[in-house]
Amino acid sequence: MDIFGNSFRISVFGESHGGGIGVVMDGVPAGLSLSPDDFAADLARRKSGARGTTPRKEDDLPEILSGVHAGHTTGAPLAVLFRNTNVRSSDYSLFREIPRPGHADFVAGVKWHDFNDPRGGGHFSGRVTLALVAAGVVAKKILRSPFAAARLDAAGLPLPVSDPGEMFGISASLVEVGGVTRDAAAASGGGDIVDASVLWAGVLDRAIADGDSLGGVVECRVTEVPVGLGEPFFDSVESLLSHALFSIPGVRGVEFGDGFRSAGMRGSEHNDPVVSPSGETSGNGSGGINGGITNGNPIVFRVAFKPTSSIRMTQHTWNFTTGRIGTLTVPGRHDVCFALRTPVIVEAAAAVVLADLVLR
Amino acid sequence: MDIFGNSFRISVFGESHGGGIGVVMDGVPAGLSLSPDDFAADLARRKSGARGTTPRKEDDLPEILSGVHAGHTTGAPLAVLFRNTNVRSSDYSLFREIPRPGHADFVAGVKWHDFNDPRGGGHFSGRVTLALVAAGVVAKKILRSPFAAARLDAAGLPLPVSDPGEMFGISASLVEVGGVTRDAAAASGGGDIVDASVLWAGVLDRAIADGDSLGGVVECRVTEVPVGLGEPFFDSVESLLSHALFSIPGVRGVEFGDGFRSAGMRGSEHNDPVVSPSGETSGNGSGGINGGITNGNPIVFRVAFKPTSSIRMTQHTWNFTTGRIGTLTVPGRHDVCFALRTPVIVEAAAAVVLADLVLR
Amino acid sequence: MDIFGNSFRISVFGESHGGGIGVVMDGVPAGLSLSPDDFAADLARRKSGARGTTPRKEDDLPEILSGVHAGHTTGAPLAVLFRNTNVRSSDYSLFREIPRPGHADFVAGVKWHDFNDPRGGGHFSGRVTLALVAAGVVAKKILRSPFAAARLDAAGLPLPVSDPGEMFGISASLVEVGGVTRDAAAASGGGDIVDASVLWAGVLDRAIADGDSLGGVVECRVTEVPVGLGEPFFDSVESLLSHALFSIPGVRGVEFGDGFRSAGMRGSEHNDPVVSPSGETSGNGSGGINGGITNGNPIVFRVAFKPTSSIRMTQHTWNFTTGRIGTLTVPGRHDVCFALRTPVIVEAAAAVVLADLVLR
Amino acid sequence: MDIFGNSFRISVFGESHGGGIGVVMDGVPAGLSLSPDDFAADLARRKSGARGTTPRKEDDLPEILSGVHAGHTTGAPLAVLFRNTNVRSSDYSLFREIPRPGHADFVAGVKWHDFNDPRGGGHFSGRVTLALVAAGVVAKKILRSPFAAARLDAAGLPLPVSDPGEMFGISASLVEVGGVTRDAAAASGGGDIVDASVLWAGVLDRAIADGDSLGGVVECRVTEVPVGLGEPFFDSVESLLSHALFSIPGVRGVEFGDGFRSAGMRGSEHNDPVVSPSGETSGNGSGGINGGITNGNPIVFRVAFKPTSSIRMTQHTWNFTTGRIGTLTVPGRHDVCFALRTPVIVEAAAAVVLADLVLR
Repeated sequence: MDIFGNSFRISVFGESHGGGIGVVMDGVPAGLSLSPDDFAADLARRKSGARGTTPRKEDDLPEILSGVHAGHTTGAPLAVLFRNTNVRSSDYSLFREIPRPGHADFVAGVKWHDFNDPRGGGHFSGRVTLALVAAGVVAKKILRSPFAAARLDAAGLPLPVSDPGEMFGISASLVEVGGVTRDAAAASGGGDIVDASVLWAGVLDRAIADGDSLGGVVECRVTEVPVGLGEPFFDSVESLLSHALFSIPGVRGVEFGDGFRSAGMRGSEHNDPVVSPSGETSGNGSGGINGGITNGNPIVFRVAFKPTSSIRMTQHTWNFTTGRIGTLTVPGRHDVCFALRTPVIVEAAAAVVLADLVLR
Repeated sequence: MDIFGNSFRISVFGESHGGGIGVVMDGVPAGLSLSPDDFAADLARRKSGARGTTPRKEDDLPEILSGVHAGHTTGAPLAVLFRNTNVRSSDYSLFREIPRPGHADFVAGVKWHDFNDPRGGGHFSGRVTLALVAAGVVAKKILRSPFAAARLDAAGLPLPVSDPGEMFGISASLVEVGGVTRDAAAASGGGDIVDASVLWAGVLDRAIADGDSLGGVVECRVTEVPVGLGEPFFDSVESLLSHALFSIPGVRGVEFGDGFRSAGMRGSEHNDPVVSPSGETSGNGSGGINGGITNGNPIVFRVAFKPTSSIRMTQHTWNFTTGRIGTLTVPGRHDVCFALRTPVIVEAAAAVVLADLVLR
Repeated sequence: MDIFGNSFRISVFGESHGGGIGVVMDGVPAGLSLSPDDFAADLARRKSGARGTTPRKEDDLPEILSGVHAGHTTGAPLAVLFRNTNVRSSDYSLFREIPRPGHADFVAGVKWHDFNDPRGGGHFSGRVTLALVAAGVVAKKILRSPFAAARLDAAGLPLPVSDPGEMFGISASLVEVGGVTRDAAAASGGGDIVDASVLWAGVLDRAIADGDSLGGVVECRVTEVPVGLGEPFFDSVESLLSHALFSIPGVRGVEFGDGFRSAGMRGSEHNDPVVSPSGETSGNGSGGINGGITNGNPIVFRVAFKPTSSIRMTQHTWNFTTGRIGTLTVPGRHDVCFALRTPVIVEAAAAVVLADLVLR
Repeated sequence: MDIFGNSFRISVFGESHGGGIGVVMDGVPAGLSLSPDDFAADLARRKSGARGTTPRKEDDLPEILSGVHAGHTTGAPLAVLFRNTNVRSSDYSLFREIPRPGHADFVAGVKWHDFNDPRGGGHFSGRVTLALVAAGVVAKKILRSPFAAARLDAAGLPLPVSDPGEMFGISASLVEVGGVTRDAAAASGGGDIVDASVLWAGVLDRAIADGDSLGGVVECRVTEVPVGLGEPFFDSVESLLSHALFSIPGVRGVEFGDGFRSAGMRGSEHNDPVVSPSGETSGNGSGGINGGITNGNPIVFRVAFKPTSSIRMTQHTWNFTTGRIGTLTVPGRHDVCFALRTPVIVEAAAAVVLADLVLR
């Protein structure tokens, strides 16, 4: 299903070459200021254009269809629509014949009896993440708003925070492309595509020259997190975050804190001793989460993105018309490393999950 | 929330030292043969006793409270209860004073105002995974049953398919403990604890001697998977599996197919070309899933477990009574490497997710 | 929340005078033929124009934003948008001062701190039922389609049943307006507004002359229902239908079969003895449902609609500015009897619920 | 599905003659005082024994399996179990042959292929409402607790109520049995069965003498309701309440405020003008709800219960063994008027819904 969340619930729709991409958000508190301009910064970070990204460019202008009146959210469902404009729908019937390796062509054909929209990946297109980024913009507003700034006092009653200030900081940055690690600390401004393209220019240029593609790892860090978000067992913070993150096309792995490295560690090394009365820990091997619940330290996680499936190089794969392996050269405009465009998407997924938890 | 699933929905409850641990399963098809004995094999694989596991032993006898009549499931909710018997509730007030590093003591105290049950970890205890294993036993029956392949005849009545064959095989095995990798192919019988304890005897003995603990990686493999399970975007197979897996206490990472390695690969290397008309691929870098939907190849994923938090070694952490860092030695009976007991839990999580998808 | 359903899930959005009204449908099977023209008949039945309905006329042209390709549903979310065109947004600030009796002005002001969109009722407007009617059109297609009778063949692939026949008939008609009962059997064509307006011309004309309004009762009848839809306890067919029906603005009561009359009956009179091997009953006091599950007889229920709240007559109610009771004359264009327009909305609610149950 | 609710979510299980009846409650706030004794008063009101109720008597002693520690709720799932003790399972195979009119025998046989538990109605038994009453006891505690007592101040921030006092009063009483109306105002103490049995002694005695049964209407009134509970469209207060109420076996109708009478009223008569700055209305035709949202006036609704299906009188209905209509005399112990026992169940359903809304 294309619906996610409990108290902040989003419903996404759309295809790459259809009428457009959209999202309906349910549970948005009334009174948040919101205009189409508020989406610009995050949308720009998702845009293509830099080295290693597709030359297809879309304006990505959001239209707010409902839920906003006089510049503020109303409490009613908030729907945002992005029209598709720069569409070149060549003949996609080839991919029914020879499904592209790594793509959903084959599974969609079986699951939906070839009724699915094949143009530009249809609903499987990475373009659907536009909807997630738009929801992320609103989610970030919820996280920073007084409406979500509940805290618990000693007696257990919900009290307003007098000055919630800048609650929650969320930033994601690329820390690896094609196996070449970058010092996350040196990453400038949360995943700026142009900068990243320059930093990894060498590895990108080689992949471009070869007609091949690259994967990458994105690290996300959420700061100013209150203690106590998340529910035991099935609604652990890790469960909800990974659920949202694995929805992003091309994700192959998600890990928190020390992640897979923790499997090779000893408890004395991995445990995070508390060093202050507010629960601050000396290290952060647990990624800010204990027992599925936030402990007040930054939430830190990493997301592995596979290399783009569509490559210029010739591939050998099954041809369902001839009934034997044939050759395939994927035409069209594709990112060489779509991971370059994902930090803002990862942030959006995190913001959507946390806004939901804060509003519960 | 402690409820998971859509068409096969489970609700877990219980504490380590309370009345017991239980699970209510909703959506179980009528007509599956089921008796308490059917739980024995999987429960045994979760049991402690071998080197590296806690000396606390529980009988773990399941009582079927509802949903079974005359040896078959009825279609009504199926409730299973495990009484706690071997309980030694010493004084746990210490951990309100000095929360254990890596534990939920601190977060539970803040979230539930110290009303949570602290005995043996309460609802955060790994013992709650008994409920998941019990649900897994029923889920595996669903996956292998003719009812999971239900069809409707012309008159609109559901009828069993005559011979669905042995649908789905699920096995999980430990492939690494404390950083020492084992050849998964050599793993005997899906995670047998005794065998694993012998294989890694050296590393376990050293950790035991040091009063320390170890983590591990479990690999799970699901075979005989039909093409087409999973839904686009938020209910991708990876989203649902990771959601369930991160509910298991102590999980730090989940990856599918090539996982984090794929971030360092090129598309030409990671892509899985199709080599047969049924969709068989030459490699399985995607872990049997494309676009969030099963492609008919085995689903393969790995789960990273952290080292046990409770260690005999002295730790230095915040004492909320004295208001400064103090020393803590955790008493009680604990697994040195709880990952040894988790392969059957990982299988259960996978079975619960797949049963839900098959019944949709 | 504005989301409803499990396997067929709909998400509605929009305001009366905002960008438009829309619905996103999740879980629509692939392969249903669908074009904007398919919505015309049901939309026409909801339209105003006849005696007793508002003179505001909207074109109500549906735009299919996603989920349809080459004239068929794709299996991806299906979004439909209706633009608002005939909008006269006069000053609605009056209703913050003097909330209209029977309206949501007061509760929306408190709940959303006056950030709600007051124009034309905003999200509380009956115009939002456009979204429900659109979903109903698709739901009816699901109920009549071979896909609702999907089965799995031995290889695990869903296949259409060759000839499921014309499954499900749903019709609703007005049986009472303003206390004047009409013989339901004589009702022509499932709630034709013009016919109804003629039949009750007298009572309508008197209300119009008085500047007052009228309520009505709609009866819905679903035929060709298979045995076995619905789930015990919380997802009984009555629970799901009433949930959807009470979402329609202005509904005050829902009853099944003998309904409230059954409270005054004896068991010997109310019980429905079975008279044929297919489960046909001699009467239908239970409205086609036993134990929350369909018994194969027609589902029959009645829905009570209140009189329109907005009336031309002067009303005396609280003025929050002056701090005492004042007079209010509601301006604008309103239905004298909006119940006239509801049979197709009632049908839509029923179709949405049944499509969901059939797809489970 | 046997699961209901969003922020306060309950999962019910059990059969009349199986291991027991139970409920798991998820989302219970920590810190509510709770002991088995707290259930006694409401359970007593559901008990049989008076004229017109079954002679089968159960102790109905609740066992709290989890979620309570040291006399207070912990925040973890709260499971309550009632063992079945007074069970006489005679041979129920007769009802596979001759399904009882008005019962679920026929539909359960088709839906679950005769694997359902037929003893005492199995999961369709009214005895399952024990689970609902138990959940209601906890829900009422939530409604009266400081944890649920959130209110909204002028600036829109959640503030604790300094003295929530006795928030929410919920009472339900029988207002009609077998068509004989009682003045609700004269009803003593919220549906006391013994009193009701005395009041309607005549009509009950005649039904008993005839071996027949009676239906009834229950009216429920919720007072001290804050303004603003409920969500627009699908989670209207009426939608959620009717959903829960129609889950109770034997309900045929639900109406709010003026209910079905409103269909025959004019707007000038049905509208509720506001008469005070707190939103108090002169009448209460809307039953305390506008636009699906509470307006601060009492929530008032009525529930119609059918006459008991199991009657001593001989009935003529289909015999699936002989293939023709035969005679049936239902043996066993049954309520002549089970509506007598339902006011506390209706209250419980209301409390469960409102606790969920208050916790959102």
